Amino acid sequence: MSPGHDVNAQTGVDMANARRNASVNISLVRDFLHNGRTEWEKRRRIVEILSKDPVFDKSKRDFMSRPERYTRGIAMTNRVYELQNIHNWSQQEANIAINSLDEQLSIGLHNVAFQPILMSQGSPEILRDFGPLVANRGILGCYLQTELGHGTNVPKLETTATYIPETKEFEIHSPTLTSSKWWIGALGKTATHGVVQAQLIIGGKNYGPHLFLVQLRSLENHRVLPGIKIGDIGPKSLGGFAATDNGFARFNHARIPKTQMLSKFAQVTDDGQYIQPPHAKLSYGGMLYIRANMATGAGWLMAKAATVSIRYATVRRQGEKGPDGLERQTVSYPSVHSRLLPIISHAYVFIHLGKTLIQSFEVMSGRLQKGDTSLLAEMHAVTSGLKVLVTSTGIQDLEIARRSMGGHGYSAFSGLGRLYADYLPSATYEGDNFVLDQQVVRAAVKSYGNLLKTNDSPNLSPSMAYLRLLAVDATVPTAPTEAAWQDPATTIQLLEWRAALLVREVSQNIDDLDATAGQRVAKAVTEAFVAARVGEIIKIVQYLLTTLEIGIVDLLSFGALGASNGRDVTRTLRLAIKNLCTELLPEVIGLTDAFGFTDWELDSALGVYDGKVYEQLWNRAQAEPLNETEIPVAYEQSIRPMLKRGQQRAAAMRTKL
Amino acid sequence: MSPGHDVNAQTGVDMANARRNASVNISLVRDFLHNGRTEWEKRRRIVEILSKDPVFDKSKRDFMSRPERYTRGIAMTNRVYELQNIHNWSQQEANIAINSLDEQLSIGLHNVAFQPILMSQGSPEILRDFGPLVANRGILGCYLQTELGHGTNVPKLETTATYIPETKEFEIHSPTLTSSKWWIGALGKTATHGVVQAQLIIGGKNYGPHLFLVQLRSLENHRVLPGIKIGDIGPKSLGGFAATDNGFARFNHARIPKTQMLSKFAQVTDDGQYIQPPHAKLSYGGMLYIRANMATGAGWLMAKAATVSIRYATVRRQGEKGPDGLERQTVSYPSVHSRLLPIISHAYVFIHLGKTLIQSFEVMSGRLQKGDTSLLAEMHAVTSGLKVLVTSTGIQDLEIARRSMGGHGYSAFSGLGRLYADYLPSATYEGDNFVLDQQVVRAAVKSYGNLLKTNDSPNLSPSMAYLRLLAVDATVPTAPTEAAWQDPATTIQLLEWRAALLVREVSQNIDDLDATAGQRVAKAVTEAFVAARVGEIIKIVQYLLTTLEIGIVDLLSFGALGASNGRDVTRTLRLAIKNLCTELLPEVIGLTDAFGFTDWELDSALGVYDGKVYEQLWNRAQAEPLNETEIPVAYEQSIRPMLKRGQQRAAAMRTKL
Ligand SMILES: Cc1cc2nc3c(=O)[nH]c(=O)nc-3n(C[C@H](O)[C@H](O)[C@H](O)COP(=O)(O)OP(=O)(O)OC[C@H]3O[C@@H](n4cnc5c(N)ncnc54)[C@H](O)[C@@H]3O)c2cc1C
Ligand SMILES: Cc1cc2nc3c(=O)[nH]c(=O)nc-3n(C[C@H](O)[C@H](O)[C@H](O)COP(=O)(O)OP(=O)(O)OC[C@H]3O[C@@H](n4cnc5c(N)ncnc54)[C@H](O)[C@@H]3O)c2cc1C
Repeated sequence: MSPGHDVNAQTGVDMANARRNASVNISLVRDFLHNGRTEWEKRRRIVEILSKDPVFDKSKRDFMSRPERYTRGIAMTNRVYELQNIHNWSQQEANIAINSLDEQLSIGLHNVAFQPILMSQGSPEILRDFGPLVANRGILGCYLQTELGHGTNVPKLETTATYIPETKEFEIHSPTLTSSKWWIGALGKTATHGVVQAQLIIGGKNYGPHLFLVQLRSLENHRVLPGIKIGDIGPKSLGGFAATDNGFARFNHARIPKTQMLSKFAQVTDDGQYIQPPHAKLSYGGMLYIRANMATGAGWLMAKAATVSIRYATVRRQGEKGPDGLERQTVSYPSVHSRLLPIISHAYVFIHLGKTLIQSFEVMSGRLQKGDTSLLAEMHAVTSGLKVLVTSTGIQDLEIARRSMGGHGYSAFSGLGRLYADYLPSATYEGDNFVLDQQVVRAAVKSYGNLLKTNDSPNLSPSMAYLRLLAVDATVPTAPTEAAWQDPATTIQLLEWRAALLVREVSQNIDDLDATAGQRVAKAVTEAFVAARVGEIIKIVQYLLTTLEIGIVDLLSFGALGASNGRDVTRTLRLAIKNLCTELLPEVIGLTDAFGFTDWELDSALGVYDGKVYEQLWNRAQAEPLNETEIPVAYEQSIRPMLKRGQQRAAAMRTKL
Repeated sequence: MSPGHDVNAQTGVDMANARRNASVNISLVRDFLHNGRTEWEKRRRIVEILSKDPVFDKSKRDFMSRPERYTRGIAMTNRVYELQNIHNWSQQEANIAINSLDEQLSIGLHNVAFQPILMSQGSPEILRDFGPLVANRGILGCYLQTELGHGTNVPKLETTATYIPETKEFEIHSPTLTSSKWWIGALGKTATHGVVQAQLIIGGKNYGPHLFLVQLRSLENHRVLPGIKIGDIGPKSLGGFAATDNGFARFNHARIPKTQMLSKFAQVTDDGQYIQPPHAKLSYGGMLYIRANMATGAGWLMAKAATVSIRYATVRRQGEKGPDGLERQTVSYPSVHSRLLPIISHAYVFIHLGKTLIQSFEVMSGRLQKGDTSLLAEMHAVTSGLKVLVTSTGIQDLEIARRSMGGHGYSAFSGLGRLYADYLPSATYEGDNFVLDQQVVRAAVKSYGNLLKTNDSPNLSPSMAYLRLLAVDATVPTAPTEAAWQDPATTIQLLEWRAALLVREVSQNIDDLDATAGQRVAKAVTEAFVAARVGEIIKIVQYLLTTLEIGIVDLLSFGALGASNGRDVTRTLRLAIKNLCTELLPEVIGLTDAFGFTDWELDSALGVYDGKVYEQLWNRAQAEPLNETEIPVAYEQSIRPMLKRGQQRAAAMRTKL
């Protein structure tokens, strides 16, 4: 107790001071992050409209049941498209609106899976008959691939689509319990149509999984069509994906016209001849599109985590006395800011990398439309590795940020738990991370093998550029001097060496790998790729150094950085990080303000712009439903009987004494 | 699709086969884990009674709102004590019942915080007047320490307890918003009494935080007493602690009789003289008791995570074709089992370690009662380090296990998300882990300093025994041979070396530590302690090797394990782990069955004893509230308008073409 000192008032003062002291040119950085002033202004306007509209009110969300969250999610979706009409928003603007709602919405599956897959793989008839409906959401779609029994292993899906030449139809059927489609977003209650992945059977012969457009519900009254059983699969872990109706479906010999096979690539003739696609991987585009977008998504999530946790750590004072005579701001503790500052740098790196990735994707996509698959393998390798890296880093960062906030971080009102719960399955969907690791390793080992054969290191693709270190007769690097750590080139080279040495080692042991080799190699390879890119664009030493710090074991294992005489060879690196953190500290509020989030977007009691976190916590708690009555219903039912019984027993005990 | 092969039926077959193939003597191991046959039988009987009683039904839990979860929690609590009367359970048996409910209950605060603190620090008058009531739950208590503005830094709490000599009362007061008690479990709706931590003020002078017994609610009608404002602080992140009414309280000059200061140690005389406690740390016992119990708690949670995930991985088949012609069981993939097997070993280690810790605690406690504080420092050092280690490992293991289950792991029905959400704050309460790290480091550096002065390594306490390596003129170890890894002594020594080298390094740099030194040192020191203990009791190589694998960077940093010629010096270690995993694989179902959990206890669709996971998922999904009606309420409100608008726009688009 310091009489007279007002801890609550201090929060506002601390935030204002931090803002005053930051020298970052916020609007410049913000425009850069948001692809220029025009895009930023567009986004700002949309967010302002949404945040003033009661449909998008968030004040009751934390108290809602799952069905209420679903109903709210659909109401928000409908409202966004109403607003699109009212304000004459483009499709891109409507997407900005949807994405600024921090909620996993069922419409996401229509926009990100159903529509692109249908449009890129549907026949001209499908494009003609369904294109405008899909584009305007006159039908609502979902993507039915996963089944109870199979997810990763698509070739083993059990749903069948049997061609009936007599009627020119396919019969979609779920022969077993485990063939039930499962996990399908928007299927449970919302979707009218779906793209179904099923084994194509013609004349008793199985041609493997193909895609079919299937109507699921009546457009008149939304009832499920005959021959189909549909439902919601129930709540998710940690309350995540609450607004999404992930669903199941079983088909009982449901018929669709033959034209509804997605036959841009593979086709079936009327008399039941199967026509192979020109290239086996032409249909990969959709998956790569989603993955390419994941870096951007992760970057903005990390940005939220950084903003909230840095703001709270700026106004939370706890513990030792600081130079101003008050308790120190928690952000000033190295054990706190060493956890948080890397999140800022991750956000900057992945937001920027995301942009270049989308550009590359569009180039590849254009070529793919012309049947040119030359860029596909590289895009596949890059997006697989990055998918693993950004999702696992993002999940970790959200929790690091939440945990850094001590007890109050565990309040739902802190806002980061909700983001974590929703983001957690990103490690699993779009390719389980541990399965993707193996693909990354396989690609790297193959490239290394080619390199050994051809010795053609100038022709290494960007994702394999680090392998050039093995082509020349270079020696394993020794420990850099303290000054050298300031130069990003030092760290980039070490990160590339780490990847190169691991790939060489793994290639030599390929028949007897240890169990975690896949994880280590995939991470090293992808981080080397990112490091080379980051070096090109933003000279962000912080990112490089902390990435290396965490991966350093993989260099030391090869005797890199030299011997030590019993002293810690990693110390100069770790000190460089510490010193860099100390330098960056005055800028962290500016660097996070530059992300440009409003309080409505963050919806966090601890991340409010003005820093008045205690008033936020207090006010939000008053709305808790349990506080509506002074005496809880549990009192008459359970508390009172328990107390009375206890009082009697206590009295009896006393009498006995 | 393999026509004729029934994926669902296969699950039961796979589980039965795995059980048949395991050679573990399950009942022997189970009795060992449960402190003998008698204790195991006791527990089994209690669990059976509970699982048959409808009050403890779990089938609707995943669909409940937070207020419903709270009401259910209190009803279960009341029922346990009713059953205690009916079956004449001892207090220990009632505790077994409470602990077997996988739910954070408000009564926990009464049993683990309120009661022990009141009984060990209350005056004889308090023991006489309140002891029997507390023991029989004739009053229900909570522990009010944390405030909105202060948690870690207890000396800065703002609540005051001012002595009024005229009436021999204390006046409990919350002078500011930030002095509001916050986070207090069982306060929001349940507790009738609390132990309040407040600054003791006598004659205007502040004597620092002391404890006071304060009645909060009427025993007649449960209404909050005048001068106090109380409420629930709202929902927690990830839906955790749903059944606990963590609450806030503000005191407006509330009076309590002077006898309600907890004055076993410090006292205030009637005329306002302050009498100091004989030893400043006599009151630490309570905190150490809770921490000592945390190893056991974490061990059993890890046991649940291991049981569920290993069972699922035994029946989930996905991907490559295995020797039996079917897809491989996922447990057979090294990238899966290398994640799961360490969890089994963690569970065994921490369950066992927990037992020895409780014994040590009891010895210390006995001495403390006689004013002998000689064992306190060691107990403090050990429990601080272990608190950090077991909670952070436990949190990680729960998520590793959940994630290993792919998509279905993210269903609430997998059961592990709920455990994770409830366990997550253990990193924060009872001492924030990052703050405790620093205490561990401080103790280690101090011991090393003493050792340098005295060179008396035989007298090192058990928690500091690893420092002996620095006393003798030993050299940093080189890489062990492949065979040597089979001997636990090898790994134990390396883990001790890791701790010793880090502590020496940190001691030499104490004025300029890098930011993560605290975390690394605390982990290394505690893992060295655990390793030495584990070596003594269960020769569990698996635990040692995987612990070393993760910590190996801290040995390599000192040039330990020797140079490498560009090859990976960690490879023999990693291969040893891989081979050990392969050896252990046939036993994992036996090793997890031996924990003895029933399906009711696990409440997991993926962890069922018979392995029939797909039927479980299907059946549980049918009960989802959204499935009660075919058409959701959102249809008329939002879906229909959205579809109609879209259809009109699509029609307009066509007309234009
Ligand atoms: C929130 C959410 C939304 C989803 N939405 C949709 C949707 O809209 N439409 C849709 O079709 N699907 C959807 N899915 C399903 C998702 O695509 C799958 O869950 C994902 O592909 C993973 O497959 P799985 O669940 O079968 O995991 P599994 O393959 O069963 O994985 C289980 C474990 O086995 C391991 N494993 C599997 N195969 C191998 C192998 N070959 N080698 C080594 N290890 C292996 C994995 O690493 C994992 O640890 C969704 C899932 C979630 C969680
Ligand atoms: C589920 C739950 C139940 C609880 N139940 C109770 C209860 O029944 N009764 C009760 O009294 N309290 C309870 N608490 C409160 C709990 O004891 C505190 O949250 C805990 O002590 C941490 O303190 P804090 O929240 O103030 O964190 P803070 O101290 O504010 O920590 C914030 C950040 O600052 C860092 N930090 C703080 N001090 C230092 C330092 N000196 N050096 C370096 N870094 C520092 C921390 O590492 C953390 O990252 C509960 C909390 C939770 C989450």
